[in-house]
Amino acid sequence: MVELLLINLDHVGIAVEDLDASLADFKRMYGVDPSHREVVESQGVEEAMLAVGGSFVQLLQPMDDDGPVARFIQKRGPGLHHLAFAVADLAAALTHLEAEGAELIDSKPRIGGWGRTIAFVHPRAFAGTLIELVESP
Amino acid sequence: MVELLLINLDHVGIAVEDLDASLADFKRMYGVDPSHREVVESQGVEEAMLAVGGSFVQLLQPMDDDGPVARFIQKRGPGLHHLAFAVADLAAALTHLEAEGAELIDSKPRIGGWGRTIAFVHPRAFAGTLIELVESP
Repeated sequence: MVELLLINLDHVGIAVEDLDASLADFKRMYGVDPSHREVVESQGVEEAMLAVGGSFVQLLQPMDDDGPVARFIQKRGPGLHHLAFAVADLAAALTHLEAEGAELIDSKPRIGGWGRTIAFVHPRAFAGTLIELVESP
Repeated sequence: MVELLLINLDHVGIAVEDLDASLADFKRMYGVDPSHREVVESQGVEEAMLAVGGSFVQLLQPMDDDGPVARFIQKRGPGLHHLAFAVADLAAALTHLEAEGAELIDSKPRIGGWGRTIAFVHPRAFAGTLIELVESP
C-alpha cells in the first residue's frame, strides 16, 4: 500500500481534430490561453496545455493518421482521451501498480511532453480509462 | 469576456458498470476512499466522489438501462464521461456561454449530486467533450 500515492489531478487530455480552432474556442468560451504548446514526435501529436486552477486541460491533435490519438478520433470522434495524476515517485508508483496486477503500458518512466517524466496505465486496469501518471518535479 | 471564469478542475466523471468493484479497484491501486456516495435519482445514477488533491474523480454507475450514463456505456463501454469546472457565478457563466453561441444542455443552474448547483454544456460546444460547470460554494 502506497500512502498518498496521488498528489493531484494533473491534467485531462482531450483529443481534438484542429488544435488552433479548439484553442480559439476555449479562449472564447472559458477565457484561457495556453501555457505551453509543443509537437511530441514520439506520440505523433501536437499538444497544448491550458491552466485551470492547479490542473491543466491538455489538447492533443494528431500529426498523422496512424498514431494512438489519430486512431482514437477515427474510432470515437474527438473527446476525452485520458486522465493524468501527479505522483511523487513514479518508479515506486509503477512498482506498486504492477504488484497490484494493474496492466501497464509503460513499465518504466519515460519522458513525455514538456520534458516531464510520465507513464501510462492501460485502460483495462481501471474502468476503461486510460490513466497517465506524471512525476511531480 | 468573463475574467477568470474557471476556478479549478472540479472533477472528472467516469462511467462504470459496477461502482463497488470500481471503488475497490481504485482503493487498491491508488489508495483513495470515497469522500461521498449518493444515488442521484434525476440522473439515474449512483455516484461516488474520490478526492485527489483539490479535485475529485467521480464514478457513475447507471441505476437502470435508459439513463444517459447507461446509454453511454451501452454505446462506448465504461470510461471517461465528462469534465467539470468550478465557477464562481454559474448563472453568469451560462449567460456568457450562450452569448458566445455555446449549445447548453441546462440553460439554467439546477441542483445535482451532493446538493451542488450545476449545469451541463453540450459536447457539440467543445471538441466532443461533455462539460459540467459547478458553482463554487
